[in-house]
Amino acid sequence: MKPHSLLVDLYELTMAQAYFNYHRDTMATFDLFVRQLPAGRSFLLFAGLQDVVSYIKGLRFGVGDIAFLKTQRLFTPAFLRYLKDFRFRGDVWAMPEGTVFFAGEPVIRVTSSIIEGQILESCLLNTVNLATMLASKAARVVLAAGHCGVFDFSLRRTHGQDAAIKAARSSYLAGFSGTSNVRAAQLYDIPAVGTMAHSFVMSFKSELDSFRAYSNIFPGRSILLVDTYDTKSGIKNAIQIGKELKRRGYRLLGIRLDSGDIVCLARLARRMLDREGLTYVKIFASGNLDEFKIARILSKSAPVDNFGVGTNMGASVDAPYLDVIYKISEVGSPRGKLLPTMKLSAGKVTFPGRKQVVRLCGKKGRYLKDVLALEKESIYGKPLLKKVIRRGSLRYRLPSLKSVRRYVRTQLARFPVSLTHVRSRYSYPVAVSRTLKRLMSQLQSHLPERSQS
Amino acid sequence: MKPHSLLVDLYELTMAQAYFNYHRDTMATFDLFVRQLPAGRSFLLFAGLQDVVSYIKGLRFGVGDIAFLKTQRLFTPAFLRYLKDFRFRGDVWAMPEGTVFFAGEPVIRVTSSIIEGQILESCLLNTVNLATMLASKAARVVLAAGHCGVFDFSLRRTHGQDAAIKAARSSYLAGFSGTSNVRAAQLYDIPAVGTMAHSFVMSFKSELDSFRAYSNIFPGRSILLVDTYDTKSGIKNAIQIGKELKRRGYRLLGIRLDSGDIVCLARLARRMLDREGLTYVKIFASGNLDEFKIARILSKSAPVDNFGVGTNMGASVDAPYLDVIYKISEVGSPRGKLLPTMKLSAGKVTFPGRKQVVRLCGKKGRYLKDVLALEKESIYGKPLLKKVIRRGSLRYRLPSLKSVRRYVRTQLARFPVSLTHVRSRYSYPVAVSRTLKRLMSQLQSHLPERSQS
Repeated sequence: MKPHSLLVDLYELTMAQAYFNYHRDTMATFDLFVRQLPAGRSFLLFAGLQDVVSYIKGLRFGVGDIAFLKTQRLFTPAFLRYLKDFRFRGDVWAMPEGTVFFAGEPVIRVTSSIIEGQILESCLLNTVNLATMLASKAARVVLAAGHCGVFDFSLRRTHGQDAAIKAARSSYLAGFSGTSNVRAAQLYDIPAVGTMAHSFVMSFKSELDSFRAYSNIFPGRSILLVDTYDTKSGIKNAIQIGKELKRRGYRLLGIRLDSGDIVCLARLARRMLDREGLTYVKIFASGNLDEFKIARILSKSAPVDNFGVGTNMGASVDAPYLDVIYKISEVGSPRGKLLPTMKLSAGKVTFPGRKQVVRLCGKKGRYLKDVLALEKESIYGKPLLKKVIRRGSLRYRLPSLKSVRRYVRTQLARFPVSLTHVRSRYSYPVAVSRTLKRLMSQLQSHLPERSQS
Repeated sequence: MKPHSLLVDLYELTMAQAYFNYHRDTMATFDLFVRQLPAGRSFLLFAGLQDVVSYIKGLRFGVGDIAFLKTQRLFTPAFLRYLKDFRFRGDVWAMPEGTVFFAGEPVIRVTSSIIEGQILESCLLNTVNLATMLASKAARVVLAAGHCGVFDFSLRRTHGQDAAIKAARSSYLAGFSGTSNVRAAQLYDIPAVGTMAHSFVMSFKSELDSFRAYSNIFPGRSILLVDTYDTKSGIKNAIQIGKELKRRGYRLLGIRLDSGDIVCLARLARRMLDREGLTYVKIFASGNLDEFKIARILSKSAPVDNFGVGTNMGASVDAPYLDVIYKISEVGSPRGKLLPTMKLSAGKVTFPGRKQVVRLCGKKGRYLKDVLALEKESIYGKPLLKKVIRRGSLRYRLPSLKSVRRYVRTQLARFPVSLTHVRSRYSYPVAVSRTLKRLMSQLQSHLPERSQS
């Protein structure tokens, strides 16, 4: 689902029209970054680059788009002709998907004609906001779940179909083991998982009949939902089915607890299952779970093997947006030099100039701190922004989703342990280089002149 | 953007396979409703029916879908052939879009073969959750804004493109005056609006140059952003442009305040503008606004004319999901009778039987209370559920978006005023009919037998 080319804020096009008339050759650099981490978050996980690249590469204004814009009586024929031939011809640098990042660090940097850079704004923000917010939330759930598997059950409560598909992708990238969303499984080659609903159990004369029907059809892959009427009786019925399957040479895959006190019920279920020799039957828990509830369940050593996580991850309920912004940092004529600039609005000051983020490593490759610096500075460490598009052409090999997933795992292990706790208050150090600081104070004293008429 | 036919939870298809083998002719009724209102909400506004209808009518499984499902090694060839010819052939009843509703009231009721009803589950929930959550939030913003206009600026922070488009539609339906989202404006014929960004101001040598460039091109439609450097200077520059436009016979449309103390700055701007005879120039406010901030700004009589509302509405930040569920309420063989059923899980009990919601009116058409009743009961009032699809065919004329918008306005005026306050704690009465109560207690004593093996 590539975004529609008219998925822009109107002001991007009216500003583009003004640039077109006044200084269409002006170049600019824009930074996409998160101003502040949401409350309770110690890090973010960058995601969405694959979609950003496909959007930028494919952005064209078709005949229908131009016709609609004409009806707005805002644009000149010359500008509409320009849009008809629009291609992005600039440069894009970005962090690889799956990179852990922090407030103030650009994750995408666009240098192009100011028109091109401006037109990308809303769609880039929308794409990165969604994918990164979800990956960041999912990473917390994965960390809380430790060695247990976690599955995406969020389709029914995500904000639309696009969000549902991205929830499956972002959560898999962050370490989830699979999704219930069949379309996402197909699109991204993610393992598809499923159990049964209460309505299924209720549509049979008895719970046992419903379990037997399901397990007859999926003898090696049945996860029985045991809480429709009474959980203890449900477990008993599941045990009976487990024994029937065993006699036929199959293993009941699991039972699912979806309500009540998960800690107590999981213990009860484990005892009952083990007593009957069904030690291999896994216990799945679901029902309004998040990283905090999972951590609490596991801290009490509840014998849960897998968690299904829906709404709280898929709508990132405790942080349903990122403070993601797209700000100009350089501007200039194509012949002259691009000059650094910054915003001075109360409480909304931005970092000027063309920047790089450098991650400093210590012994055994442990991450120590990040430095936000100007690109031309030489700082010893790992530069996080990579060249992705050069003069409109892709110069970067997008990694597979599975390799992004591996990258997330190895990377998280290199940060201080205190960063990855569910209730972490650790603030990973991000320094601003001296050169960048100096540039900022120069601009802060000169830029206000621009408001003088 | 019709949802993909594989946008289902895997369990819907595995359950369908089991139904197909065991009782493919079984009929069932499912209710879609919100279990509990989100904290701080006194009502919800139903939206999403247009998409639900287009999804149900268009739901087909294509060759590629079937091929993918085959790779899952879960489904029989006979079932996959059934899916190939799948059509929804059942009945759908629903509230009209824009209807105010409350917890426990079905907004959609599906009666069909149990397979068909089950396959719709996740996509219906996803669609209604998004559109209704957004319309409900937007209605609160509109109520808080009173006579001021409100515009949707949420594209950059909604959960993906689908959510962005639905945010524009749902907020317009709820009474917003326009959107910055060009694609949504095109799709739904919503007025498109736009101002300018800080980057635009910063790309010119001076703020005044940037204002002049913009207003030269859009002389009758310029809204100047005055807070890039210093708001007071920005207002002065806007006034100079306003006077230049006036001499040329144009009116400066407005200025926009996007940071700082909106109440003080709006008063300052109004005084400065009025002193120069620019009494017609409107003041727009934006920047992290929601219904609470708007109510506070207006309670201090700040002279703001229009509000731009983004993230807080578009991601429904304080209630980023609804407790929307889809539950079976009747089941039976096609030849026998459909029998009422209900769920007994701890804390998750549902209402059985085929139901109607009746709204009771008093003098001058004021709404008094709702009654949740069985369909066959005769209760004097306005039945809210209407026939939409009968045996697979559309039997309902979907109203235009503009008429839904009018319906919302007239309807809200008929509820008690206390319902529509921003901090309303009023709980509109929803009664359960005696007959329905009796049915519930009968089932509560008999259903547990089903868990006995």
